[in-house]
Amino acid sequence: LNDGVRQADEVGVVTGLAWTSVGGETMEIETAVLPGTGKVQITGQLGDVMKESAQIAVSYVRSIAEDYGISTDFYKKKDIHIHAPEGAVPKDGPSAGVTMVTAITSALSGIPVRKDVAMTGEVTLRGRVLPIGGLKEKSMAAYRYGVKTVFIPEENKKDLEEVDNVVKDHITFIPVSHVSDVLKGALAHSPSSKRKKPTPPSTAPIENAPVKIDSISIQ
Amino acid sequence: LNDGVRQADEVGVVTGLAWTSVGGETMEIETAVLPGTGKVQITGQLGDVMKESAQIAVSYVRSIAEDYGISTDFYKKKDIHIHAPEGAVPKDGPSAGVTMVTAITSALSGIPVRKDVAMTGEVTLRGRVLPIGGLKEKSMAAYRYGVKTVFIPEENKKDLEEVDNVVKDHITFIPVSHVSDVLKGALAHSPSSKRKKPTPPSTAPIENAPVKIDSISIQ
Amino acid sequence: LNDGVRQADEVGVVTGLAWTSVGGETMEIETAVLPGTGKVQITGQLGDVMKESAQIAVSYVRSIAEDYGISTDFYKKKDIHIHAPEGAVPKDGPSAGVTMVTAITSALSGIPVRKDVAMTGEVTLRGRVLPIGGLKEKSMAAYRYGVKTVFIPEENKKDLEEVDNVVKDHITFIPVSHVSDVLKGALAHSPSSKRKKPTPPSTAPIENAPVKIDSISIQ
Amino acid sequence: LNDGVRQADEVGVVTGLAWTSVGGETMEIETAVLPGTGKVQITGQLGDVMKESAQIAVSYVRSIAEDYGISTDFYKKKDIHIHAPEGAVPKDGPSAGVTMVTAITSALSGIPVRKDVAMTGEVTLRGRVLPIGGLKEKSMAAYRYGVKTVFIPEENKKDLEEVDNVVKDHITFIPVSHVSDVLKGALAHSPSSKRKKPTPPSTAPIENAPVKIDSISIQ
Amino acid sequence: LNDGVRQADEVGVVTGLAWTSVGGETMEIETAVLPGTGKVQITGQLGDVMKESAQIAVSYVRSIAEDYGISTDFYKKKDIHIHAPEGAVPKDGPSAGVTMVTAITSALSGIPVRKDVAMTGEVTLRGRVLPIGGLKEKSMAAYRYGVKTVFIPEENKKDLEEVDNVVKDHITFIPVSHVSDVLKGALAHSPSSKRKKPTPPSTAPIENAPVKIDSISIQ
Amino acid sequence: LNDGVRQADEVGVVTGLAWTSVGGETMEIETAVLPGTGKVQITGQLGDVMKESAQIAVSYVRSIAEDYGISTDFYKKKDIHIHAPEGAVPKDGPSAGVTMVTAITSALSGIPVRKDVAMTGEVTLRGRVLPIGGLKEKSMAAYRYGVKTVFIPEENKKDLEEVDNVVKDHITFIPVSHVSDVLKGALAHSPSSKRKKPTPPSTAPIENAPVKIDSISIQ
Ligand SMILES: [Ca+2]
Ligand SMILES: [Ca+2]
Ligand SMILES: [Ca+2]
Ligand SMILES: [Ca+2]
Ligand SMILES: [Ca+2]
Ligand SMILES: [Ca+2]
Ligand SMILES: [Ca+2]
Ligand SMILES: [Ca+2]
Ligand SMILES: [Ca+2]
Ligand SMILES: [Ca+2]
Ligand SMILES: [Ca+2]
Ligand SMILES: [Ca+2]
Repeated sequence: LNDGVRQADEVGVVTGLAWTSVGGETMEIETAVLPGTGKVQITGQLGDVMKESAQIAVSYVRSIAEDYGISTDFYKKKDIHIHAPEGAVPKDGPSAGVTMVTAITSALSGIPVRKDVAMTGEVTLRGRVLPIGGLKEKSMAAYRYGVKTVFIPEENKKDLEEVDNVVKDHITFIPVSHVSDVLKGALAHSPSSKRKKPTPPSTAPIENAPVKIDSISIQ
Repeated sequence: LNDGVRQADEVGVVTGLAWTSVGGETMEIETAVLPGTGKVQITGQLGDVMKESAQIAVSYVRSIAEDYGISTDFYKKKDIHIHAPEGAVPKDGPSAGVTMVTAITSALSGIPVRKDVAMTGEVTLRGRVLPIGGLKEKSMAAYRYGVKTVFIPEENKKDLEEVDNVVKDHITFIPVSHVSDVLKGALAHSPSSKRKKPTPPSTAPIENAPVKIDSISIQ
Repeated sequence: LNDGVRQADEVGVVTGLAWTSVGGETMEIETAVLPGTGKVQITGQLGDVMKESAQIAVSYVRSIAEDYGISTDFYKKKDIHIHAPEGAVPKDGPSAGVTMVTAITSALSGIPVRKDVAMTGEVTLRGRVLPIGGLKEKSMAAYRYGVKTVFIPEENKKDLEEVDNVVKDHITFIPVSHVSDVLKGALAHSPSSKRKKPTPPSTAPIENAPVKIDSISIQ
Repeated sequence: LNDGVRQADEVGVVTGLAWTSVGGETMEIETAVLPGTGKVQITGQLGDVMKESAQIAVSYVRSIAEDYGISTDFYKKKDIHIHAPEGAVPKDGPSAGVTMVTAITSALSGIPVRKDVAMTGEVTLRGRVLPIGGLKEKSMAAYRYGVKTVFIPEENKKDLEEVDNVVKDHITFIPVSHVSDVLKGALAHSPSSKRKKPTPPSTAPIENAPVKIDSISIQ
Repeated sequence: LNDGVRQADEVGVVTGLAWTSVGGETMEIETAVLPGTGKVQITGQLGDVMKESAQIAVSYVRSIAEDYGISTDFYKKKDIHIHAPEGAVPKDGPSAGVTMVTAITSALSGIPVRKDVAMTGEVTLRGRVLPIGGLKEKSMAAYRYGVKTVFIPEENKKDLEEVDNVVKDHITFIPVSHVSDVLKGALAHSPSSKRKKPTPPSTAPIENAPVKIDSISIQ
Repeated sequence: LNDGVRQADEVGVVTGLAWTSVGGETMEIETAVLPGTGKVQITGQLGDVMKESAQIAVSYVRSIAEDYGISTDFYKKKDIHIHAPEGAVPKDGPSAGVTMVTAITSALSGIPVRKDVAMTGEVTLRGRVLPIGGLKEKSMAAYRYGVKTVFIPEENKKDLEEVDNVVKDHITFIPVSHVSDVLKGALAHSPSSKRKKPTPPSTAPIENAPVKIDSISIQ
C-alpha cells in the first residue's frame, strides 16, 4: 500500500488530487525551470480554468519570491514549464492551485517537496485557499497511493466526516486557509536553511514541522 | 453578521458585488503588481465585457498615476495581474469597473483598501461612473457579508427605494458620478499621507472622510 | 432639454450619434493618451467594422500630426486607448469615423472639443467623409441630448428634408466632405493658438468659427 | 458623366474596379505611409484572398523599391496602411492586385496617380498580371465614373468584344501582362523626374506616356 | 505545344504540378527574398498541409545554406515571401515540397531555375523525397505546358507505366529520393560557378547535368 | 526483411512507432537545429497532444543540455524544427515523447542515433516514461521495418506476452522507466566520447552498450 509515492523528496514535482466521474485520482504536477527569457509554458491538455490556475500560481510565487530566496528577476531570466501528465488526458478545474504553487516554489527555490504529501485546493492571487469538491474520493486515491499527509482547504474541514475510516487511520489531514501554510508543511526544509548541506530524509512526522496551522489528525 | 469582510485593510483587494440569476453575491477583485515589463494578465474566467473593464481600469489608473504617487513608468516596469476568484465560475458584465480601478490603484500605490467597503459601477475611460443593474440583490449580499459602506452609481440612487429596510439600516450608500470619489472614500488614506507611518485602523465612519460627494445615509 | 451635453469643453471626448433598431442614440467616444510604446487599445464591445474605423482614425491622425502640433513620434512613445461606453452594449458600423478622428486629435493635441457639438460620418484613410444612414433618428437623439451643432456628411445633405422641424429649429447642421472641416469646427481652438493661456469658454456660435465649409442653418 | 474621378492627381489613391452580383463598381484603394516600424495594416472588411493580395502587393513593391527611388529600409522605418472604403461593405477576390501595387508605389515614392485612370488585375509576387472576371460590368462602372483609361490583364483582351460600344467610345483599354507597365502608365511622372518641381497637371492623354505595352484604343 | 513555360531561366520561380478533381495542372511557386528581419510569409490560399510544406522547405534550405553560397544569417536579415498564384484558388497537400525547396534555394542563391523543368514530391526535413499521387494527370499537364523534364519521387517510378505514351515521348522523367538531386538538376548552374558572368541559356539537355541520380528516359 | 531502416546512423532522426485503426506503423521523427533565435517549429499535421509532447521534449532536453555537451544558451541561439513525415497524415497522441527527446538530443549534441533502433513511450517533464497502447501492433511494424531493438515503457513489459513469437525472435525489447536510459541505448556513442574522430559504424549489439536498465531479450 505504498507503491505510488516517490522514493525520495524531489524538486519541482508535487502530488495533486483529482476528482473524475469514476472516482479520485492522484495527479502529479511537474515544473521545470530553465535558463530563458520569462516564458511560461503549460502542457498536459489543461482546460481554461486550470491554465488560469497555473498563471495565478506563477504570479503568486513571483509575489513571494524574496521570502524563498528566489532571485526576483527570474521572470525575465528563466522560463517555467508546468506539466500535468498523462499528456492525453484532458484535465480542468481550479483545485490544483496549491499543487502548482508548491511545485513552482520548489522548482525555483531548489527546495525539495516531501515525497509522502498530497494536496488539493484553489488558490487566489494573494494566496487564499478556497474549497474544493470530491474530498472523499480524492482522499481514497491519496490513501491507495501511499500518501501520509494531505493538505485540504480550511472550508473543507467539515467534509472530513464523510471520508472513509481506513483513510483517516492512515492519513493526517491538514486544513489550511492560506497557501503559505502548505509551503511551510510540504517543502522539505525552510528557505533559511537552504544553503546548508543536505540533511538525511526527515523521519519526523509532519506534525512536528513549524506549521502554525490548525493541524488535526482524524481517527 | 460580519464574518465575510477582511480582518484588516489590505492592499490590492476590493469587495465587488455581482448579480446572478440566483441573487446577489460578493465578488472580490485581487490585484498583484509584480516587477515586470508591462504585461497585464486577467484571470477568473472573465467574459469579454469584464476583460475590457479590466483594460479600461488599467488605462484609467495610468492616466491618474501621478496623483496617487505611482511611478509613471510602471507601464513598462511592472506587470499587473487582476484576478476574480472563484476561478471556475464564469463572470461577465461591466459593473466591476469601479472595483477594478480601486484594486489596481491600491496595488500600485500601496495604499490599503478599507476592509468594510463594497462597490459596484461601470467606469468609462475618463472615470465617469455609469449605472448598473441588480442593486437590491447586490445590497442584500453586501449586508450578509458584513459590509458597512457601499459605493453605487449616482444614476442608481433612485433604485435605493427598492432596497430592503434591514439593509438600509446597516449600510451607508454613497452615490458617485466619478470614480475619483470612490478612490477618496475607499482607500484607507490619501496619497499625500502615503509615506507616513501606518496609522491604527480607522474607526471614523466613512462619512467623515474628505469625500466631496452626495453621501446619503439610508434608514 | 439640455441635460446631456458636457458642462465644459473637454479633451479627448466627443459625442457621436448611433442608429439602432429602436431609434437614434448619442454615443460618446473617449480617448486616453498615455505614456507608452505605441499600442492602440480599443474597448466597448465594438464589432469588426467599428474596430477598423478606429484603426483608420489613428492612421489618419498620424498623417496629420504635424498640422496639430502633435509630436510625430507619438506612435512609439504613447499608447492610445479608444473606448465607447457603455461597455456591455455591442456596437458596430463605420459612422463613428469622424467622431474617433476628432477624439484622437483632441487627446493627442490637448485641444478641447466643444461641448455642444455632435457628429456622424464614415472617414476614409485620406480623410474623405462618406455618407451614413439614420440621419433623422440620429438628429432627434442629438436634439434630446441638448446638442447645438451636428456635423454630417455632405452626401447626407439631401436627407435633411426628412429631419423633424423642431430639431431643425434647434440644431445647426454642417455638411462636410472632409474630416479636416470637422476638426476646424469641433475643436475649441486652432492648433496655432495652442500654447496660449486658456480662454474663457467660447460663447460664439460655431457658425463664426473659421470653417471653410458649406455651413447651413436649417429652420 | 465625369463627377466621380478625383479633381487632381493624388498620391496613394487609385481607382479599382469591382464586380458584384448587382454589377460593376468602382472601388478606391487608399494607402497611407507613416513614420513607423514596418507594420502593415489592412482595413475595409477585406476577405482572406484580398488581404493576401495586399501582402503580395507590399512584397512586390519592396522588391522594386530602388527603381522608384524608395528608400529600401522603409520596411523597418515606415508603417503602411491600406484601406478600401466603404468600411462596412465586405470585399474579396484577387483582382485588386494591380490597384494595390500602384497605390503603395505612389504612397512610398510620392509620385501622384493620374486621376482619370482605373485598373483591374491579379498580381503575382514577381509582377505578372493574371486575368480577372466581370470585365463588361467593371468597364461600365468605370465609364459611369468618368474614367478615361483602364488597365486590364493581357489575357482579358479577348473579353473586350463583350464590352458596350458606348464604353469603348470613351475609354482607352490598355492590356498588360506585367504590373510594371501599369506603373509606367498610371503614375503621373517617372521616378527619375521625381525631385523636379511639381509640373502643372498633365493634360497629355495617357497614350502619350512612355508605355512600352500593347496599348489598344477601342472604338 | 510550348506556350506555357517561361521564356528564360528565372530566379525564384519554379513550375510545380497539382492534381485536382478535374485533372492535373501546372502550378508555379514564386519566392521573393527581401531585406528584412527573418519573417516568412506564405500566400495563395494554401491549406494547413501546404503551409507546413513551406515551413519545412524554408528550414531545409536553412540547413543547406552554406552549400549554395547563401549567407547563413539570412534568417535574420531577409524576409522570405512564398506565393502560389492564382490567389483565389484554394490549394493544399504536401507534394509541392520539392518545388518550394527549389524556388527558395534559387531566390536566396540567385541561381536561376531551368525554364523547361517541372517537379512534384513531398520533402521531409532532411531532404528525403516521399511519393505523391496523380502522376498520370500531373504528367499530362506538364506535357501540355511544354515542359521537357519532370522530377518525380523514386517511389513513384512504378507509376510511370500508367503515363500516356505521347507524354513519355516528350518528357524526360527523373526519379529522385533526395531533394538535393532536384536542386542539382533544376538549377541553371552549380553554386561554385555562381559568380561567373551569365552564360547563354543552356541548350544541353538536363541529362548531361552532373546529376548522380537514377535518370531514366521514357520512350 | 530489412529494407526500412536507415543505411547508417544519422543525426536528428529517430524511428518511432504509431498505432492506428489499421495496425501499427513506423513513424520517423526528424529534427533540424538551425542558427536562430530560440524558435521551436513543429510540423507534420500533429494534434494538440503530440504538439505538447514536442514542447515537453524540448524542455526536457533543455534541462539535461549540459550532460550532453549541448551549449546551454541554445534556447536563444538556435531554432529547432521537429517534423513527422508524411506531412498530409494527421497524427496525435503522447507516445512519441521518447522519440522526440532522442531526436532533439541527437540534433543538438551531434551524436548520431543507432539506425536499427525504434522506440515508443510518453515522456513527462522530468523524464519519466509512461505506458502506451498498441504494443503488439507497433512491434509488428518494427519487425517488418527491420528494427533490431525496441525501447518500451517499463509498465508495458507485461504486454510483451501478446507480441508475436516471430517478432520476439528478431527484436530485443528494452523496458525503461526513464528516458535517460533510452538516450544511453539509442545514441551511437556517449557524450564524453563526442569530440573523438568518427568511429566505424558500431557492429556491437546494443545489449553491450553501457545501459544500466532492465534489459530483457524475448525468445
Ligand atoms: Ca492515472
Ligand atoms: Ca470550486
Ligand atoms: Ca461565491
Ligand atoms: Ca449596464
Ligand atoms: Ca444609452
Ligand atoms: Ca455606410
Ligand atoms: Ca459604392
Ligand atoms: Ca481569378
Ligand atoms: Ca490554372
Ligand atoms: Ca501523400
Ligand atoms: Ca506510412
Ligand atoms: Ca497513453
